[in-house]
Amino acid sequence: MSAEDEKTIAFILYPGLTPLDLIGPLQPLSGLRRLVPQWKTVVVGERIEPMGTDAGLSMTPEASFEDVPNPNIFVVPGGGAPTIKQMGNDVLLEYVRRAAEGAEIVASVCTGSLILASAGLLDGRNATTHWAYHTLLERLGVTYLPERWVEDGKFVMSAGVSAGIDMALHLIARLTGEKISRLVQLGIEYDPHPPYGGIDWSTVDRDMLYPLVSSYVDQELVDRPELQNRLLNR
Amino acid sequence: MSAEDEKTIAFILYPGLTPLDLIGPLQPLSGLRRLVPQWKTVVVGERIEPMGTDAGLSMTPEASFEDVPNPNIFVVPGGGAPTIKQMGNDVLLEYVRRAAEGAEIVASVCTGSLILASAGLLDGRNATTHWAYHTLLERLGVTYLPERWVEDGKFVMSAGVSAGIDMALHLIARLTGEKISRLVQLGIEYDPHPPYGGIDWSTVDRDMLYPLVSSYVDQELVDRPELQNRLLNR
Repeated sequence: MSAEDEKTIAFILYPGLTPLDLIGPLQPLSGLRRLVPQWKTVVVGERIEPMGTDAGLSMTPEASFEDVPNPNIFVVPGGGAPTIKQMGNDVLLEYVRRAAEGAEIVASVCTGSLILASAGLLDGRNATTHWAYHTLLERLGVTYLPERWVEDGKFVMSAGVSAGIDMALHLIARLTGEKISRLVQLGIEYDPHPPYGGIDWSTVDRDMLYPLVSSYVDQELVDRPELQNRLLNR
Repeated sequence: MSAEDEKTIAFILYPGLTPLDLIGPLQPLSGLRRLVPQWKTVVVGERIEPMGTDAGLSMTPEASFEDVPNPNIFVVPGGGAPTIKQMGNDVLLEYVRRAAEGAEIVASVCTGSLILASAGLLDGRNATTHWAYHTLLERLGVTYLPERWVEDGKFVMSAGVSAGIDMALHLIARLTGEKISRLVQLGIEYDPHPPYGGIDWSTVDRDMLYPLVSSYVDQELVDRPELQNRLLNR
């Protein structure tokens, strides 16, 4: 295999993200290399330094944005208030826009789709996000679908946090076929058994956390009044 | 709430582990604090410095073993060859033994149970591990059960990698009840939909990776010939 055949899947790391959004799809996609050596993952960040997460521990990217300007695939994880803040980070948005131009697949987990939308990449598209943030996505001109993952052209977006695992196995199937996807699934022993079964969506009010979510927009995007007003519909 | 009421859930981080083993249960258990402030998670390591993982990126613990000598609960994540190596790390084993004495619950994910067994904590008990490592667990005098998670007294052990998420939700239910567990599940949107369904175990030979697994024991435990011989049954 020549270096030209190598394909790069970049995962974006930024301060304060939800680590399961990142690690959920990174674990299966990094394991793909053992079965199909062409595929290589790399975690990229604005700087190569430890960054805090919303679960306490810190994580350090393997490379900077400059090191990986043209990944074949890139994945934007989400989080809470820190992700809202990144919606106004021009360095990140510029990287996302530029990388999206040449990428075969642009993926997001959870509120990572809000970053894609803020970069102007999802106008008029179907997408999904964490259930509690659906209104913000809709106010950016995106059609929210309450599905585990949503594909619209080269964009593949998953629902909240843990949904990135399902999306990654779908991506592996799309890239290499069902057989390899099932082998990776066996490797991470993904045979889920939530103690009380799945979520009963008939009992969930997807607007119940809107006061909290809108407070994040109020706090984290003070320097972006236009984006803030759009997200808060005022 | 006084500081005395605070309860600590420590997650052990060591070089080369499988990050989903750690982050899978850490994400829901760290989220528990928002609902039940008594519970606090902390990621501990032999040293507070970035440590590589088997998915490329590095992670830094929040505290050292010395900082958290008596957690109420502690969780040992697993991995591949690097986890086998830790089975011979006296500093880690000593921490695990000492912490287990006072802990209410001792948990493991994936091959983390091999570390517990190597510390002498699982003699004659029921336990589980990643399917590919069941023989090693059995050779340490443990009864392997092919279940998503196994409880034996204060020991709670999950199957491979992703199984730590299910185990964490079970632990949350054990600690605080079903209602809180379901709320945390909703928070991480854990409504799993593997693209091709769960694993069909009737098609899986749990011994197929034994040559690889035994090569890890050969390579990583050269300084521990007694443990090595026991694990390789020679």
